[in-house]
Amino acid sequence: MYVVIIGCGKTGSAIADLLSKNGENVVVIDKKSISFEKLSPDFTGFTINGDATELSILLESKIDKADMVIVTTEIDSVNSMVSQIAKYIYEVPKVIVKINEPDKAIIYRNTDIMTLSPTDLFIDKLRYRLAKEGSGTLNEESLSWE
Amino acid sequence: MYVVIIGCGKTGSAIADLLSKNGENVVVIDKKSISFEKLSPDFTGFTINGDATELSILLESKIDKADMVIVTTEIDSVNSMVSQIAKYIYEVPKVIVKINEPDKAIIYRNTDIMTLSPTDLFIDKLRYRLAKEGSGTLNEESLSWE
Repeated sequence: MYVVIIGCGKTGSAIADLLSKNGENVVVIDKKSISFEKLSPDFTGFTINGDATELSILLESKIDKADMVIVTTEIDSVNSMVSQIAKYIYEVPKVIVKINEPDKAIIYRNTDIMTLSPTDLFIDKLRYRLAKEGSGTLNEESLSWE
Repeated sequence: MYVVIIGCGKTGSAIADLLSKNGENVVVIDKKSISFEKLSPDFTGFTINGDATELSILLESKIDKADMVIVTTEIDSVNSMVSQIAKYIYEVPKVIVKINEPDKAIIYRNTDIMTLSPTDLFIDKLRYRLAKEGSGTLNEESLSWE
């Protein structure tokens, strides 16, 4: 499987390492070359230092051949733009985007882009654990992020 | 229930709003007063503008009376310090800490402090969704964050 990862922060680098370890072909794009230092020494994929909102950089990553694109930068507007380019211009079969500010999830409603919000996952897990312990204080509210 | 939340970022403010909505007594501490603008207009708790690594600020929040402390700043060293003060000096029954860099979770091994890492939750959820869809590429690795 050929996977392009946009953003080599905590999340992007961890996913890149995991996919590389599992034998997938991985390319990671980041604006700052220092970000690539987060990758494990065992990472066998490629890195591209550049701005993923520029089509030339995306083409350099061979995004048009990708089976999956995972967009993980810290900036929701960048994530929105890049994930939509991946999905609708390059027709990447699977596009997954990280939501930084939970209220930005609405951008992707009615798209084929899969969203994941670490903040909402955190809150949901916290609620689950507290419920399991019977404190019950976070039980009543249901989340709309999934 | 009396809950002190340290850090009013995306995670802290969302939890504060949720707990406040559920009728709990909430105090949120943040170094930057502008952070409190993230709180909902319906938030009924209190805010304290100050550095939670200073005991005077923690005492102002009446941390010694808290049933639960949730530590959510972006800085793992601050989170580590504050959560340990809450647990071992003020003997707060339930202390929950956000892990920003997943490799920092080890600090809390063998403590009674509950940890949650948004990044690990993101990766785990991504793996789960991909497995469910049968792409299987993130299935083989098991995470150690829980």
